[in-house]
Amino acid sequence: MNAPDASAVNALMDELGSAARAAAARMAAAPTAARNDALLKLAALLREQRAPLAAANALDIEAALAGGLSGPMVDRLRLDDKVLDTVAEGCEQIAAMDDPVGEITELKRRPSGISVGRMRVPLGVFGMIYESRPNVTIEAASLAIKSGNAAILRGGSEAIHSNLALAGLVQQALAGAGLPVEAVQLVPTTDRAAVGRLIAMPAYVDVIIPRGGKSLIERISAEAKVPVIKHLDGNCHVYVDAEVDLELALKVTDNAKTQKYSPCNATESLLVHVDSAAAFLPRIGAIFAAKGVEMRCGPRAKALLASVPGAKLVDATEADWSEEYLAPIISIKLVDSLDEAIARINRYGSHHTDAILTTNHAHAMRFLREVDSASVMVNASTRFADGFEYGLGAEIGISTDKFHARGPVGLEGLTSLKWVVLGQGEVRT
Amino acid sequence: MNAPDASAVNALMDELGSAARAAAARMAAAPTAARNDALLKLAALLREQRAPLAAANALDIEAALAGGLSGPMVDRLRLDDKVLDTVAEGCEQIAAMDDPVGEITELKRRPSGISVGRMRVPLGVFGMIYESRPNVTIEAASLAIKSGNAAILRGGSEAIHSNLALAGLVQQALAGAGLPVEAVQLVPTTDRAAVGRLIAMPAYVDVIIPRGGKSLIERISAEAKVPVIKHLDGNCHVYVDAEVDLELALKVTDNAKTQKYSPCNATESLLVHVDSAAAFLPRIGAIFAAKGVEMRCGPRAKALLASVPGAKLVDATEADWSEEYLAPIISIKLVDSLDEAIARINRYGSHHTDAILTTNHAHAMRFLREVDSASVMVNASTRFADGFEYGLGAEIGISTDKFHARGPVGLEGLTSLKWVVLGQGEVRT
Repeated sequence: MNAPDASAVNALMDELGSAARAAAARMAAAPTAARNDALLKLAALLREQRAPLAAANALDIEAALAGGLSGPMVDRLRLDDKVLDTVAEGCEQIAAMDDPVGEITELKRRPSGISVGRMRVPLGVFGMIYESRPNVTIEAASLAIKSGNAAILRGGSEAIHSNLALAGLVQQALAGAGLPVEAVQLVPTTDRAAVGRLIAMPAYVDVIIPRGGKSLIERISAEAKVPVIKHLDGNCHVYVDAEVDLELALKVTDNAKTQKYSPCNATESLLVHVDSAAAFLPRIGAIFAAKGVEMRCGPRAKALLASVPGAKLVDATEADWSEEYLAPIISIKLVDSLDEAIARINRYGSHHTDAILTTNHAHAMRFLREVDSASVMVNASTRFADGFEYGLGAEIGISTDKFHARGPVGLEGLTSLKWVVLGQGEVRT
Repeated sequence: MNAPDASAVNALMDELGSAARAAAARMAAAPTAARNDALLKLAALLREQRAPLAAANALDIEAALAGGLSGPMVDRLRLDDKVLDTVAEGCEQIAAMDDPVGEITELKRRPSGISVGRMRVPLGVFGMIYESRPNVTIEAASLAIKSGNAAILRGGSEAIHSNLALAGLVQQALAGAGLPVEAVQLVPTTDRAAVGRLIAMPAYVDVIIPRGGKSLIERISAEAKVPVIKHLDGNCHVYVDAEVDLELALKVTDNAKTQKYSPCNATESLLVHVDSAAAFLPRIGAIFAAKGVEMRCGPRAKALLASVPGAKLVDATEADWSEEYLAPIISIKLVDSLDEAIARINRYGSHHTDAILTTNHAHAMRFLREVDSASVMVNASTRFADGFEYGLGAEIGISTDKFHARGPVGLEGLTSLKWVVLGQGEVRT
């Protein structure tokens, strides 16, 4: 980038940031009803304004086709009726949820006479950086509005026309509800320098939420001057214990790996206790073989799978134990103990989501406690690690960090807790 | 620093870090009883081992006197019976507290059949950087042990002999309880390069907690490669509303400013609604005058205080509104509305602790909600912002950040929440 461009972009971003900061203060103080009203108005606009949205979307689709983007990439850009219905319904669902802001919990009277509790408050301003799908614009906007934050959205350049049209509707809905339109702003330029500035203006932006490929998120994390809510990898494990319900283990392992290959909560690594291996491995191997799932095996696992017809067996390398395939591939290893399973998961896993399949209560409790991951599961598919499945109502991202938000992040992850003290003139002695 | 030294120090710190990481995994899995046992053994050792502690402490005191340290600085170093009794009692109190680790809350059944909840778990390894007082070594060690974390402690060089002796007792107590001695390690060198490494080894250290002067904390925050739990300033405000109980306001404002001048929760700035000013200001001014508190005033406040006998009145500069004096000085300004008070606090304050004194419920609730500080108070002295007063049982620091821990940080701030999912073979459809 050359200096004059960057400086113009920086000035633009500072302007967005300053406006967002001011809007955030108004959003934090705004009544629940006004924020819900904006969400319902937005849902209505998304249903009514199909023609202008389609026209804007057509510009992006044309450009994508002209640019030779692949079919799946083009499909991701599409704002068809189904996508618009889904995001409109999402807005209505979020409007119907309890307001997370202002809730006071744990209010307790202390010996001094004061009452001490905690109030949930918005974080302030978040910056969201995402790639092709324009529906993320509405998901992020609706979570910002409900949680009383302001948001600066930076979508993919390939969806810029769609995103501008959607952001226009968001601002129309905000204005209609008497809220500041700067509560949700879309970065209007596709200049890459805008991202560099967005992640490095702590005076205006409190947190960055990136969604996209690992390299994008790594770069953002390395360069950001504010906290980043993120996960890099989802190298999720299923551990089949020595004591296990075989039918349950087959069903859950199959689902965790094959129900969908691309999500971050799909299982990538299977650990099997040596005592269960002879009974379990050939049967799950047959399921994987039938679905074309390649198995990257340690030597003992490979020996047990050798007789499975049609099995694609590959010798695992050290790198396989850390790999997030996002594909019909799974690494498989035998372990001699629960301790070994826990140690391997903590060493090679990505601290995202890991499951034990067992009938032994003590083993289940040890796994829950000692596996250092955002989500730990007993007898359930790793595919459940998801904001909707957890009852958060919505999900803005998944975090593998231990600070602030861990695991699926919903409205609560966009808030902070402050202490409130209610007194009657108490003083410190 | 020269290269060979730095590289030796780095190697030493990596060794401490690696040992801490391994110990943290064992501490996270350790039974509650073992951790409490270590705390009780530590309390007993602190009472029994007075002679060797006194001998070690004498070395530090001698060096301090020889180095020409001031009387108060030397006093801070002293490990006398009173200090040792206090820290020993602190260990016993922490042992008696509920275990924060392993608690599962909010466990709810979801429509899919899985139960989803959150388990409180240790953060891992924290690094603590502090100055002269050697009792902080025991405070940090006891909180680390109770919360199932490992800690690397870096005390002030002037207390190195005392700290080494105290850390020796901590490790003796850990060993006696069957816990890894590397759960609490004191950095054995006073080389400054050790701090630089401690704050920049994310593989081994999850969070840094600095205690000390603002410049130390600013430097650590700027250079750290891991999250830092901290506050820089405590520019706390008292706002006296238009509707107020005058006697209550006098008592609380006096206490908030003058009960102790040096703590970060002492009030530094007084805002008075114009409607209360004529009745309130001359009376609080007389109290301040009697205690020798200098008043840095806006013009309208100064006019109302002009007749107070003996009042030290100074025209406030713009810098005064942001200043943390930690001294018998207070800035005073009249405001025309609650809105102005809130806006000024959010602009000039340090987001630490701010109080409204009012009889009006709506004003109180707006202040609680809209003042963006770690602690917001109604009709109570800002001096209450403290882990013990809030019922945390102990305090390792105070945070003005919105992420993770906000306000006084106790055991809970040394933990994280992970999601637990309990199923009976559920799969995602």
